[in-house]
Amino acid sequence: MEKLTLHEHAASGNCYKVRLTAALLGLPIERREYDILKGETRTPEFLTRINANGRIPVLQIGDRFIPESNAACFYLAEGSTLIPAGRFDRADMLRWMFFEQYNHEPNIATLRFWIAVVGDDKLSDAQKAQIPAKRAAGEAALALMDEHLASHSFFAADRISVADIALYAYTHVAEEVGFDLSICPNVQKWLARVAALPGFKPMSD
Amino acid sequence: MEKLTLHEHAASGNCYKVRLTAALLGLPIERREYDILKGETRTPEFLTRINANGRIPVLQIGDRFIPESNAACFYLAEGSTLIPAGRFDRADMLRWMFFEQYNHEPNIATLRFWIAVVGDDKLSDAQKAQIPAKRAAGEAALALMDEHLASHSFFAADRISVADIALYAYTHVAEEVGFDLSICPNVQKWLARVAALPGFKPMSD
Repeated sequence: MEKLTLHEHAASGNCYKVRLTAALLGLPIERREYDILKGETRTPEFLTRINANGRIPVLQIGDRFIPESNAACFYLAEGSTLIPAGRFDRADMLRWMFFEQYNHEPNIATLRFWIAVVGDDKLSDAQKAQIPAKRAAGEAALALMDEHLASHSFFAADRISVADIALYAYTHVAEEVGFDLSICPNVQKWLARVAALPGFKPMSD
Repeated sequence: MEKLTLHEHAASGNCYKVRLTAALLGLPIERREYDILKGETRTPEFLTRINANGRIPVLQIGDRFIPESNAACFYLAEGSTLIPAGRFDRADMLRWMFFEQYNHEPNIATLRFWIAVVGDDKLSDAQKAQIPAKRAAGEAALALMDEHLASHSFFAADRISVADIALYAYTHVAEEVGFDLSICPNVQKWLARVAALPGFKPMSD
């Protein structure tokens, strides 16, 4: 495989997804850190060369770039057991990855960013008005995961896949912003299963 | 292939994506309509049997179910030319599909739903407060697409893929809710290219 470079902000769960996928696969990946609060991913150079969307993570493969965390994880995992072999199971894995980007990340990750990074006092009125809806939607996403995990060990094909990695990233830090995982016992057991995988690395690593 | 059934609300662009993918592939698909405003996708039977997330579209394959429009399109297209053969190109296609669900749909599709379906007078104050940010984010998504299409005929691998189908669904109706496509000439040409594909069917079909 060509040289892999991750353009990232290490504290971002979206970036952690890509590092965790690489770690579970034993793939070496070079890391380049950007300070998103200082606008380092909105410079003309970043927008022109790395990602016109001004966001991290971006996975660089040789001289080509893949933005979007879940697409980057898919790239790394292709051909490995982190992507299910069956056609239905592959689509089912993607189903949970799209769920993560639509129902989970915009609620749990965005609240974490607003509350833990930006700070309550710096939020706009429009942002503050969204907090109750985002909290309720985040709780609903966690409840849906807990229901699924009542009868499954992992999200797709009943074995570890990149869907689990995508959902692990912000679920395992959801309590930092007040989501109560004690009411999601199946999620808690699944978090422990992911953290026990050979090659697992924590977000702080 | 097993019998395909689409659980849908025909006016939803997310459901149209699945119908358009099936049409381009020449796959017969049975359609079952739900009235989302009457809560027909939140009944106990729907939540238990079809999608615990209470949303359409859901693609039924025999007696198994794939929620999430883009995962359903991926399922239908696997093994066809609507998914690029190269590893980088496949991930790049998914990159645009995740972009669609994160940066495009929550802005353009949600505004269309709020303004054209729910109605201005029925929106909550929190929803009304989000309209300017959603409009700006929708415009940014269209501008990013236009920039990409200045040097590409399609989104991934420079040929039609399910990424184009995903992005076509709500882009081609964006003007219904006041997005100005006259400033996106490359998007307009791409919309015409998609609509000229053999097997293409309009949303109203």
